[in-house]
Amino acid sequence: MKRAVVLLSGGLDSITALAIAKQQGYECYTLSFDYGQRHRAELTASEILSKQQDAAEHKTINIDLRSIGGSALTDDIDVPEEMEEGIPVTYVPARNTVFLSIALGWAEVLEAEAIFVGVNAVDYSGYPDCRPDFIDAFEKLANLATKAGVEGQKLSVHAPLIHMTKSEIIKTGSQLGIDYSQTVSCYQANSEGKACGRCDSCRLRKQGFEDAGLADPTRYQ
Amino acid sequence: MKRAVVLLSGGLDSITALAIAKQQGYECYTLSFDYGQRHRAELTASEILSKQQDAAEHKTINIDLRSIGGSALTDDIDVPEEMEEGIPVTYVPARNTVFLSIALGWAEVLEAEAIFVGVNAVDYSGYPDCRPDFIDAFEKLANLATKAGVEGQKLSVHAPLIHMTKSEIIKTGSQLGIDYSQTVSCYQANSEGKACGRCDSCRLRKQGFEDAGLADPTRYQ
Repeated sequence: MKRAVVLLSGGLDSITALAIAKQQGYECYTLSFDYGQRHRAELTASEILSKQQDAAEHKTINIDLRSIGGSALTDDIDVPEEMEEGIPVTYVPARNTVFLSIALGWAEVLEAEAIFVGVNAVDYSGYPDCRPDFIDAFEKLANLATKAGVEGQKLSVHAPLIHMTKSEIIKTGSQLGIDYSQTVSCYQANSEGKACGRCDSCRLRKQGFEDAGLADPTRYQ
Repeated sequence: MKRAVVLLSGGLDSITALAIAKQQGYECYTLSFDYGQRHRAELTASEILSKQQDAAEHKTINIDLRSIGGSALTDDIDVPEEMEEGIPVTYVPARNTVFLSIALGWAEVLEAEAIFVGVNAVDYSGYPDCRPDFIDAFEKLANLATKAGVEGQKLSVHAPLIHMTKSEIIKTGSQLGIDYSQTVSCYQANSEGKACGRCDSCRLRKQGFEDAGLADPTRYQ
């Protein structure tokens, strides 16, 4: 059975990427990161969601991105409750590059053929490492970086949501049977994973359910 | 003053890369990783060497690469004492990709213009992520991955040793005043940083001093 490493943040997007990978016939290995983020409820959510989707294995890797700083998600900077222009303060420097790199390492050990990541370039909050060019460049790098690449075995990096709107993601995931009430998208969720309803991420998500014409199952504080 | 993040492993190559960055006029920020490696003496060596070279700051980031496994340097696999064909068992999956990614994050926070890495494609032990193509691909990725990249500020990735032989590296570093007795290259150094003299890395290093016509200052067990 072909294998894939799937990055799981506990949010709505990554669980949808996992369901898509599963539907495409991959045996899925899910990967989350404890990187000193504020919203740690996402780690519990990732574990629960990985099991619900019958992943072969779930790993949480510790990595201290707080010590390099630079983001409202890891530093002592307030998470804004108004939409910002440009790249927001919640951007964690090089986060997706770091996460994809570690996924690449695990993919190499597992002899996996693919990495799935739930990044999205439409309702993407303005993060630079969510754009199609970035994903393409990472795939090129991946095939130069590894033993498998050197030996001619191609690894592909899939970002199945990259051109979808939030409501399209929600519709797709709902058709695949995802229970979105378990996902945590909020930047400042409480310890039970209940959302604030006010941050950028909550707004995008709320609008997505509205646009999809589906009831919002989010557990709010 | 222009800034650079320099990856420091505590070995002979990376300290030479640091001395070169310093000579080129960069204010240097050194970065090491505690990734569950066997040869932890390299972490102490990195701290000492960073100070000796007047780096502006030194950070050691914890990241548990042991949990993804796959290498004699992190797993319970014996380090070989004979040269191997092809990619050796000491290869840590995607290690340089992960390390460069975190360096990229720090470079972004520091608004640094450059990353220096001491990889070497001549006496490189056969690791795929030490080749020029890999470094070029990472530089491309870096400039798509970050806020600075999006805003048109170019980050360059320097691998000044990439085409040097071990003896050329040693001659260059010696001219720059490096005290190589403090560096730890051995894959199975003891807690005081003393080398085994038998692993791949020790052999390459020993031969390098011989070829350079310099006394080998390595502290052997």
